[in-house]
Amino acid sequence: MKLSVIGLGLMGGSFALSIKKHFPEWEIVGYDLNNSHQEQALKLNLVDKIAKNFDEVKHSDIIILAIPVEGIIKVLQKLEDISDDTTIIDLGSTKEKIINSTPKQIRKNLVAAHPMAGTENTGPKAAFDTLYHDKIVVFCDIEDSGEKQKQLATEIFTKIGMNIVYMNSHEHDIHAAYISHLPHAISFALANAVLKQEDPKSILTLAGGGFNGMIRIAKSSPVMWSDIFKQNQKNLIQTLDTFQNELDIMKELIKDGKWEELQKWMSKANSLHNIL
Amino acid sequence: MKLSVIGLGLMGGSFALSIKKHFPEWEIVGYDLNNSHQEQALKLNLVDKIAKNFDEVKHSDIIILAIPVEGIIKVLQKLEDISDDTTIIDLGSTKEKIINSTPKQIRKNLVAAHPMAGTENTGPKAAFDTLYHDKIVVFCDIEDSGEKQKQLATEIFTKIGMNIVYMNSHEHDIHAAYISHLPHAISFALANAVLKQEDPKSILTLAGGGFNGMIRIAKSSPVMWSDIFKQNQKNLIQTLDTFQNELDIMKELIKDGKWEELQKWMSKANSLHNIL
Repeated sequence: MKLSVIGLGLMGGSFALSIKKHFPEWEIVGYDLNNSHQEQALKLNLVDKIAKNFDEVKHSDIIILAIPVEGIIKVLQKLEDISDDTTIIDLGSTKEKIINSTPKQIRKNLVAAHPMAGTENTGPKAAFDTLYHDKIVVFCDIEDSGEKQKQLATEIFTKIGMNIVYMNSHEHDIHAAYISHLPHAISFALANAVLKQEDPKSILTLAGGGFNGMIRIAKSSPVMWSDIFKQNQKNLIQTLDTFQNELDIMKELIKDGKWEELQKWMSKANSLHNIL
Repeated sequence: MKLSVIGLGLMGGSFALSIKKHFPEWEIVGYDLNNSHQEQALKLNLVDKIAKNFDEVKHSDIIILAIPVEGIIKVLQKLEDISDDTTIIDLGSTKEKIINSTPKQIRKNLVAAHPMAGTENTGPKAAFDTLYHDKIVVFCDIEDSGEKQKQLATEIFTKIGMNIVYMNSHEHDIHAAYISHLPHAISFALANAVLKQEDPKSILTLAGGGFNGMIRIAKSSPVMWSDIFKQNQKNLIQTLDTFQNELDIMKELIKDGKWEELQKWMSKANSLHNIL
């Protein structure tokens, strides 16, 4: 089996490593528009070889799309003429636009997957072989994927240690907006607010575990995340409205000195930890 | 030397453990209005004994105030008549109001300290002996503390592994608002926004490392944090304004589809990690 990974950063590199571990007989080919990423991936042994050209990628049995979501849409247009037997798996964090923009003739080839895994680090060096282990992957609109593709993707994700959950792509994007995209947006905004007001020395002095946890994902890739925000624009705006509304409720309670009500509001937030 | 710890939760319990480790010859007395906390602290060996009454606490050489900041202010009023030789150390997260409300006759007794250490867990069971190790502690308005008290507090915090930084209490509260209190406020608001919109099943399915990091401190104690928000009300409102302004900037960029500008704004946020 020949598997090509397009995008050799954290997600693609870690995926390649997982495949190496669990399907040692497969040939893993890497492809990345960034030449230094290609070289690093080869040096770090993430892939067996680098594709000579895009045509070689197209003639793989499996094509993994591990690039920013706008890139996924562009690459899918270039895959229109692949074989019926090929399986394409995209790892994008948004799903509805990617699925809707997939050329009809290759819709059956595609398994639209969102692995709930990641770190704030980027590039081939950030890759590690347990990134996906014991995590959830969401398959979206799986009824529109081909039977063969569905079976192969199921085998792959199960073997690398992921639990598969099924979702409608529209619903997925709304949930992902709240539970993944909004937290990233907030982390970026907090980092920028603090940078605007505070000098580096005070930040270094006073930054504790709480602060560090809240700005960790503000280190994430701007290209990757502006793409996600673009594709999930409408849902994200909606989540920002909801969040700003909660901020306003809190601010009023603080301004009005309603400390008991504030405690109740905080206790509600505490209850999230009964779920997780 | 007899050291009493008022408040046997995460902060006080961990402080007692650190003292046990580094000053094994000292007697450590615990005091907590919550009886079950007293029992647990004794059972967990955080303290050598529980004070029979508040008078026993008053007759200690060192009194550690490790309770919510409104409680600190109340207890300080009850310590008016302590000996000139006693050292009081408060571990509160806000400093200006505590210092200003300290009875004049015992101002020299007090060392106002803010250890930049903590976790989202609460109660005696959350205590551990390395909480303070290799962390920073801020001494505020130290010029108003007595020489003896200053020296003793310096010895204690240095020996338990902390690096001492000096700050004016007014400045401290502004910095702490941005770097500690605002992140907590945001985490509470994010948790409540998500709880309002999302069902537990979707949260469980889609919650990854990013989300978990952002809502971790929303598990923090409502009593402790409403007290902090009360004492740092004005500064906190100011930081919320700054944060909301950044959110609005981001939201406009997303609404207007200015993706390149959004990337630049995100790159600025990335730069915080050059400091930390």
